[in-house]
Parts: sequence; structure tokens; C-alpha cells
Amino acid sequence: MKDQLIIKMVLDAWNQYLKRTDDLFLQFTDQDLLKQIAPGKNTAKYLLGHLTAVHDRMLPLLGLGQPLHPAIHEDFERRPDGDHVNKYSTADLRRQWSEVNTALNNAMATLTLDQWFERHNAVSPEDFNKEPHRNKLNVIINRTNHVAWHYGQLLLIKNKEE
Amino acid sequence: MKDQLIIKMVLDAWNQYLKRTDDLFLQFTDQDLLKQIAPGKNTAKYLLGHLTAVHDRMLPLLGLGQPLHPAIHEDFERRPDGDHVNKYSTADLRRQWSEVNTALNNAMATLTLDQWFERHNAVSPEDFNKEPHRNKLNVIINRTNHVAWHYGQLLLIKNKEE
Repeated sequence: MKDQLIIKMVLDAWNQYLKRTDDLFLQFTDQDLLKQIAPGKNTAKYLLGHLTAVHDRMLPLLGLGQPLHPAIHEDFERRPDGDHVNKYSTADLRRQWSEVNTALNNAMATLTLDQWFERHNAVSPEDFNKEPHRNKLNVIINRTNHVAWHYGQLLLIKNKEE
Repeated sequence: MKDQLIIKMVLDAWNQYLKRTDDLFLQFTDQDLLKQIAPGKNTAKYLLGHLTAVHDRMLPLLGLGQPLHPAIHEDFERRPDGDHVNKYSTADLRRQWSEVNTALNNAMATLTLDQWFERHNAVSPEDFNKEPHRNKLNVIINRTNHVAWHYGQLLLIKNKEE
């Protein structure tokens, strides 16, 4: 019973920060997306692509399928914000953000209680034997903290003067 | 066994973000603490007091004792950043941050597995019967996301030009 409870707790927190962040992106105009969270720092547009890329990679990490938009992984994860981001339209990035989160949450809903405690695909079976906390549920805990981190930054753009 | 594993997972994430944030505060000079995370937004000094106040209130919330520094709760939680923060020295705020986290983590270490799944003190026994996810472990999940949120903001001050 506690196992089910803990999965609910972890998924509730994930969904809470995903919704808070999604609500912010929906409030932002395309002009807002071009703003930097602080002088010389990432734009909201870059963070939109970055969070989409990180969530897209959760599909294979959790054994839930292929990523939907592998083309953006390099540009929004390995490379810092810059001119290369101009080749992506805000409309495309908004659509991909929505697609990825929907696909991910739908796929996550199929996982059984036991599957949540199985290893994720970035850890070998040998290492998992020694470190059983490196399971799929732990990926959600870590990615929730990651989205909360960037949510705090994106909040700085809300109601920002031009 | 899964119960013990999940407590380790939740506490590992808490300790990871607490350490990351603490490392940042240690890197910051007193001058850095006076900087705003973005123009017109909170100073790092305010966030230092804010996180200390929120963590201090976790002591009574988790049934682990009285808060150590109730005097700062109002000034760093209910009130936004402003001139009233000047009456606190950075040295005092740094010391309180350290004291509170040490006291909190020492007290948390005494909780048994079953106690982590007991209600926290902001929920009534009646409500907890209906919503058993509102337990002590859930407080840690939520406060980890909270510290990650502000950690993302504090990072913006790192290496910031004067």
C-alpha cells in the first residue's frame, strides 16, 4: 500500500511542476519567449526547447519508446543558448513541448507498481544490483527537481518590463 | 524493502539540492549576497533568509521540535524583499541557515520508516484519513522542489558581472 502511495506522491509533484511550467509558457507571448531570464542568461525560448529535449529523452530512459524529437537534443542540451536557436520557430517548439509531455505521461500511466522500481536505461544491470535506488521512479524525482529549477528561472520573465 | 528504498531516494534528492544550494552560498561573497537574481527581483540575501525560514518551519511541521529562528519567518516569508532585510547581517543569516539545516537533518535522521508515512502537522487527522499521501515524506518531496526552484535562480548570480 505504501508503494502505491509513494508513486502517487512522486507523480503528483511531477504533474504539479509540469503544469506550473506549462501554464507559464502558455501565458508567455512569442515576444516573451525571446526575453532572457536575466541579463546575458538563457532565453525562455531556449528553456522551452531544453525542457522538451530533456523530457523527450525520458521516453527511452524509462523504456517507454523512442524519443519523438531527437533533432533538438543536441541544440538544446549540449549547446548553450545562441544563434542556432533561431532556426526553430516558437510555434514548433511549443507544439513539441506539448507532444512530448503528452506522450510521456500517457506512456508513464501504463507502468505497473513493480515496473516503477525496475532499473532505468542509463544504469547497467550489474550496477543496478548494487544500487537499486537507480530505478524509474527515481528518474521522475530528479526530473521534477530539474523542471522546478527552470520554473523558478522562467518566473523571472513573468510581468517583466520590456 | 521498497519503503526503505524510496526514503533513501527522497532524502538523496533533498541532500543533493541542499548541498548544491549551500555550496553556492559558500561561494558567494557578502557583496554577491546583495545582488539581485535579475533586475528588480529578490536578492540572494533575501533568498538565504527565505530558505532558512522555510526549512526552520519544517521542524514543527514534521513534529521534530520548535523552530530555531521564528523571528525571521515573517520577514522572509510573508514580506517580499525590501529595506527591512537590512536589519539582518549576512553573517547572522549564514549562521542561521547552517544551524537550521543541521538541526533539521539531525532530527530527520531519527525518524523511523513508519514515521515518514505518518501525517505532517499541517493536516488534520480527519483529512489525513482521506488523504494519506499528506505525510512527512511528502513534505521533503515538496521542499526539495522548492529549494531546486530557488537554486536555479541563485545560479544566475554566479559569475555575474558587477
